[in-house]
Amino acid sequence: MACSADTLAAMFGANTTNPAAAAAFICDQFNTVSSQFTDTAYAVDTTYLLFSAYLVFAMQLGFAMLCAGSVRAKNTMNIMLTNVLDAAAGGLFYYLFGFAFAFGTPSNGFIGKHNFALKSIPSSDFDYSYFLYQWAFAIAAAGITSGSIAERTQFVAYLIYSAFLTGFVYPVVSHWFWSVDGWASPSNLDNLFLGSGVIDFAGSGVVHMVGGIAGLYGALIEGPRIGRFDHSGRSVALRGHSASLVVLGTFLLWFGWYGFNPGSFTKILSAYESGNYYGQWSAVGRTAVTTTLAGCTAALTTLFGKRIISGHWNVVDVCNGLLGGFAAITAGCSVVDPWAAVICGFVAACVLTGFNKLAEKFKYDDPLEAAQLHGGCGAWGIIFTALFAKEKYVNEVYPGKPGRPYGLFMGGGGKLLGAHVIQILVIFGFVSATMGPLFFILHKLKLLRISPEDETAGMDMTRHGGFAYVYHDEDGIPMKKIEHSST
Amino acid sequence: MACSADTLAAMFGANTTNPAAAAAFICDQFNTVSSQFTDTAYAVDTTYLLFSAYLVFAMQLGFAMLCAGSVRAKNTMNIMLTNVLDAAAGGLFYYLFGFAFAFGTPSNGFIGKHNFALKSIPSSDFDYSYFLYQWAFAIAAAGITSGSIAERTQFVAYLIYSAFLTGFVYPVVSHWFWSVDGWASPSNLDNLFLGSGVIDFAGSGVVHMVGGIAGLYGALIEGPRIGRFDHSGRSVALRGHSASLVVLGTFLLWFGWYGFNPGSFTKILSAYESGNYYGQWSAVGRTAVTTTLAGCTAALTTLFGKRIISGHWNVVDVCNGLLGGFAAITAGCSVVDPWAAVICGFVAACVLTGFNKLAEKFKYDDPLEAAQLHGGCGAWGIIFTALFAKEKYVNEVYPGKPGRPYGLFMGGGGKLLGAHVIQILVIFGFVSATMGPLFFILHKLKLLRISPEDETAGMDMTRHGGFAYVYHDEDGIPMKKIEHSST
Amino acid sequence: MACSADTLAAMFGANTTNPAAAAAFICDQFNTVSSQFTDTAYAVDTTYLLFSAYLVFAMQLGFAMLCAGSVRAKNTMNIMLTNVLDAAAGGLFYYLFGFAFAFGTPSNGFIGKHNFALKSIPSSDFDYSYFLYQWAFAIAAAGITSGSIAERTQFVAYLIYSAFLTGFVYPVVSHWFWSVDGWASPSNLDNLFLGSGVIDFAGSGVVHMVGGIAGLYGALIEGPRIGRFDHSGRSVALRGHSASLVVLGTFLLWFGWYGFNPGSFTKILSAYESGNYYGQWSAVGRTAVTTTLAGCTAALTTLFGKRIISGHWNVVDVCNGLLGGFAAITAGCSVVDPWAAVICGFVAACVLTGFNKLAEKFKYDDPLEAAQLHGGCGAWGIIFTALFAKEKYVNEVYPGKPGRPYGLFMGGGGKLLGAHVIQILVIFGFVSATMGPLFFILHKLKLLRISPEDETAGMDMTRHGGFAYVYHDEDGIPMKKIEHSST
Repeated sequence: MACSADTLAAMFGANTTNPAAAAAFICDQFNTVSSQFTDTAYAVDTTYLLFSAYLVFAMQLGFAMLCAGSVRAKNTMNIMLTNVLDAAAGGLFYYLFGFAFAFGTPSNGFIGKHNFALKSIPSSDFDYSYFLYQWAFAIAAAGITSGSIAERTQFVAYLIYSAFLTGFVYPVVSHWFWSVDGWASPSNLDNLFLGSGVIDFAGSGVVHMVGGIAGLYGALIEGPRIGRFDHSGRSVALRGHSASLVVLGTFLLWFGWYGFNPGSFTKILSAYESGNYYGQWSAVGRTAVTTTLAGCTAALTTLFGKRIISGHWNVVDVCNGLLGGFAAITAGCSVVDPWAAVICGFVAACVLTGFNKLAEKFKYDDPLEAAQLHGGCGAWGIIFTALFAKEKYVNEVYPGKPGRPYGLFMGGGGKLLGAHVIQILVIFGFVSATMGPLFFILHKLKLLRISPEDETAGMDMTRHGGFAYVYHDEDGIPMKKIEHSST
Repeated sequence: MACSADTLAAMFGANTTNPAAAAAFICDQFNTVSSQFTDTAYAVDTTYLLFSAYLVFAMQLGFAMLCAGSVRAKNTMNIMLTNVLDAAAGGLFYYLFGFAFAFGTPSNGFIGKHNFALKSIPSSDFDYSYFLYQWAFAIAAAGITSGSIAERTQFVAYLIYSAFLTGFVYPVVSHWFWSVDGWASPSNLDNLFLGSGVIDFAGSGVVHMVGGIAGLYGALIEGPRIGRFDHSGRSVALRGHSASLVVLGTFLLWFGWYGFNPGSFTKILSAYESGNYYGQWSAVGRTAVTTTLAGCTAALTTLFGKRIISGHWNVVDVCNGLLGGFAAITAGCSVVDPWAAVICGFVAACVLTGFNKLAEKFKYDDPLEAAQLHGGCGAWGIIFTALFAKEKYVNEVYPGKPGRPYGLFMGGGGKLLGAHVIQILVIFGFVSATMGPLFFILHKLKLLRISPEDETAGMDMTRHGGFAYVYHDEDGIPMKKIEHSST
Repeated sequence: MACSADTLAAMFGANTTNPAAAAAFICDQFNTVSSQFTDTAYAVDTTYLLFSAYLVFAMQLGFAMLCAGSVRAKNTMNIMLTNVLDAAAGGLFYYLFGFAFAFGTPSNGFIGKHNFALKSIPSSDFDYSYFLYQWAFAIAAAGITSGSIAERTQFVAYLIYSAFLTGFVYPVVSHWFWSVDGWASPSNLDNLFLGSGVIDFAGSGVVHMVGGIAGLYGALIEGPRIGRFDHSGRSVALRGHSASLVVLGTFLLWFGWYGFNPGSFTKILSAYESGNYYGQWSAVGRTAVTTTLAGCTAALTTLFGKRIISGHWNVVDVCNGLLGGFAAITAGCSVVDPWAAVICGFVAACVLTGFNKLAEKFKYDDPLEAAQLHGGCGAWGIIFTALFAKEKYVNEVYPGKPGRPYGLFMGGGGKLLGAHVIQILVIFGFVSATMGPLFFILHKLKLLRISPEDETAGMDMTRHGGFAYVYHDEDGIPMKKIEHSST
């Protein structure tokens, strides 16, 4: 919409009493209209982004409940405190440094360098709502890692790695793939890596692999929990203390994933062709559908797969399978068709089961299966995207550069796959080179693992002021006795 | 807004230098404006619909927690798995078949026949967000039924009925009343049933009665749980294991109902008279208010009613009363005044209490009171709507056909009541004719009920790999003992 | 946007064939556009307000879980019932009276007097969504108070004070500070109190202090729970029964606070300068960020502070610290910079710790620390706002009266501080004068506190029909034994 008063005045011509004034009058009105559309778009998009951010934040509650339910009762306070702390410390660190490292443009391809402590925000580039949304992502990464090292890690080690991960490691990786300046960003239009850039739409790599691989190193260096493998090396399940909390956490994560994946568009009022029913709002809805279908398929696959393997219908495994499907679809959710999401979820369930077998074989103990789930399924999701991304969707979601590579199986060639394989290697390498040494140094300084006595007694008693639950009367009478007298 | 360049050019007239160009210039601008309004409306309405869908999805978490808390600890894993499965299997089935049966137009009045596996979506009729919203409704129906047959049903029976209900029974019923082609749909303008169509706005009948009556047949055919009625036939309460989970689930359902009822408008940017403060946004808000007031009144009525009957203030009963109020207002929430919602809630609480008395008398055992609550209060809600629907609101919410019948007590005659009585009969009949035989066949094939041994031991131990809770130390030391040593 | 057809017609002039018709034609189109913008703004703002209201409602669930987890298992049913009841009774009372007392304009400065039972709503002043939003606030105040008097209050006393608080005390206070007619409202432009009015944006005073001080009187008059202070007067912690519920409740409150604080703008589509990226949407985002940072800082401060004082890392204390930060930032969230929010949170944690020390010294027993947290941190938040409110933000958020006083430390003089000190005194005085006598009369009538026998046995057994939890098999076999046999 561009109203040129001069052009219009010439059309009115000399016989009109005041052609310039009439044209200016009309064009002024159109300019006002145009400004009001701008305002409307800001309001609509901010509403969309803020409520998406709130949903992503709800995932932190989901993590807290999932983690709490998956550990033994004696470590419940400990794991929940780490989840609260992730959000709180993440808030301060991401405000002070993280956001600047991730999105502070103009910058180089490796790390951002502006907007520390939200300096120069709001601007035409970023508003507060964008920061809030990205903060909610940053704390998710740290939440993933906490699951891998649960039930045996000193609280002080937790404080250190969490600050380092949310304040530096995660922001740098997100800069590479999501900032307009990132070396592998699909939005770095002047300099597309392999002529393509990496399509990791909502972060199967940036969030899930980063969190999962960080957890892998922590758990590897600490070793398994006492009792996780018996004297003859056989695997002994250390069951979590509450399946209700596991289901609660899983559903909350599902709920929050609707902010995570569809929300990653960050804007919803964007027409692909103005006046048509099909626009970014439709792509947003499609993303919600692909996300749903991948998770559902992975859950069903796990249900029947585990039934065959173990002989029973296991709700906790189904929950993990579901989350594996979500972690996998996260990279490609916006650029694939619903039918492809079904394939994504099916394979994700198999990948998770496979990695869990592998972990057991190598006596790797990860109480939440976080490395297998977020690392393994996350990596599969990156490959999946490079295979199934659809040309039309890629060009709509990443505009401004026609003729991009897309999914190999969709006829888009191997360039995207090449970029995505490199993404996996680079994330693996960078997290290995940063979090690996960090956990190793903490280990050497005897700051990483708690003592065997504390581990046996449980951290809640020894470090957090007591158990999480008191279901008995003060006089020590278990409830049931009183219950009997009541009926 | 329709800018005719020819008309405008004629007004400018021959003395204007280029009247056609000037008029086209101006009208082009207006057409651009018009297109941008179209885009804006899609973005706003999709934002509204998607977040409503997310809220409805949160009801599935609410059901899971409500059901978990309402059963005994030994069946917690089982009931939660059925809830997770509802959402997951429902996702696939509704994607493949259900949505097509429900909304695949053009079709006949009985069943839809297009859009299998989201073929031809998005279109000007349906977008992905609409599918997601309807999926969240479909899984709610199956969730209701699972409550009725809790604590004694084989998992495989659950898999079968759930697929049949979400894949066929529910979609067909929703087609009748909600598709533009449905034989009793209020949107089937050329062919309004009884000149009225059925006003079941968010599904007191389509969702709640369907789920409740399906549960009724399941529970009737299975018979009561062991111990539910003692040797002399007296009722023995088998209390759920966690009131906290019941309250959590109830509040989550309340929260989600704001997506269920107000969200059923599916669009919010729709003026009843452009430029006025009163439009569909206002009707949406009114719907949220009527929903709230019906639930609140039903909760209070139940609180005082149960206090008089049983002598104590019972939170679980209050929760059920609240949900009964919601189930009842769901049909008429958009077309009644707030004061009428108060009446709706009051009667709903009485209906629920009455049906519960009746159930006890006939030794009908429904662990979640699902048939009484969703079936009974749902039916009352359908009648209520036919009595209290307001003329003005009916015509605004169901436009395009002035002079529709409305509530009998509001002076709108008996036609709507006639249509609504038929709705109740037809839903009762169709669900009886489909779910009844299904449960009966499963029963005859010995696929329905678990063995008495398994029932006594609990399904979690025998079918799902162990109990949902482990509140004790590995060494078997109950927490309390350790707790003592700490203080 | 104001299209004057006469002006435009004159510009076209006499040589145009039909200048009046052409001008009217064009201006009609612009008027249509203008109306459509009006419609769009209503739809966008209502979407924003309704979903914010839903989030605030979710806080009620948060309160219920936080309270449940913070009391002993034997009083769980009781406290949860009070929370459900708050929402339900609050719904009816606020509909019938409360909203009218609070916002029924035109009225005097003390109390509103229109819109009883939503009469004359919707209007150009208020829509249903506004009522729903305010209802969710009203029930929050009563929820706060219930924490202070938990574990020892008769249910009937609860019914009485809750109705009085949500039906009268809270509405009157909110009228003073939030209605356009309120004597201290910053929107009472013709009559600004001290030339300023009080800036209590989302209610550190109106909601949190009111709820907290009401609780203070209840808890003071009842006295401490049996066993809370031992024979020698030493403090004995009566630990809540579930830290998982505490964390669940805290995260839900955090989630809901994004409706509470940013939602208090009630509109998001409002340009400060049309066509610019900076508008009310940006202020809304900033408010979400200041809220987040205040809570995060308070949580971290409490974590390290408590570690130094008590020697362990305490998740329950961290949760309370976090909520104290939120209660404090609530007044000034929209008018301060993010860095100031960090200060707000730091001090809030200290204030809470200090008041808790004081409470222990004076043997004041408040199971949820509600008076200290909501009263104490709320009061600090009011002072904080008067110190750090930024000129630019104050004028944007409270337009129509340039040159308002703002924060003392920001160079805005002492007028705002004066008004805010008076706010604290007036709220303290009014709640003391209403809730104090109410609790005292209930005490004198022996309607306030339960008997020592009932308190020892727990209210769930004696008043609410049984314990909240049954984790044992019917045969009384504790789960663990069966668990052993399974592995």
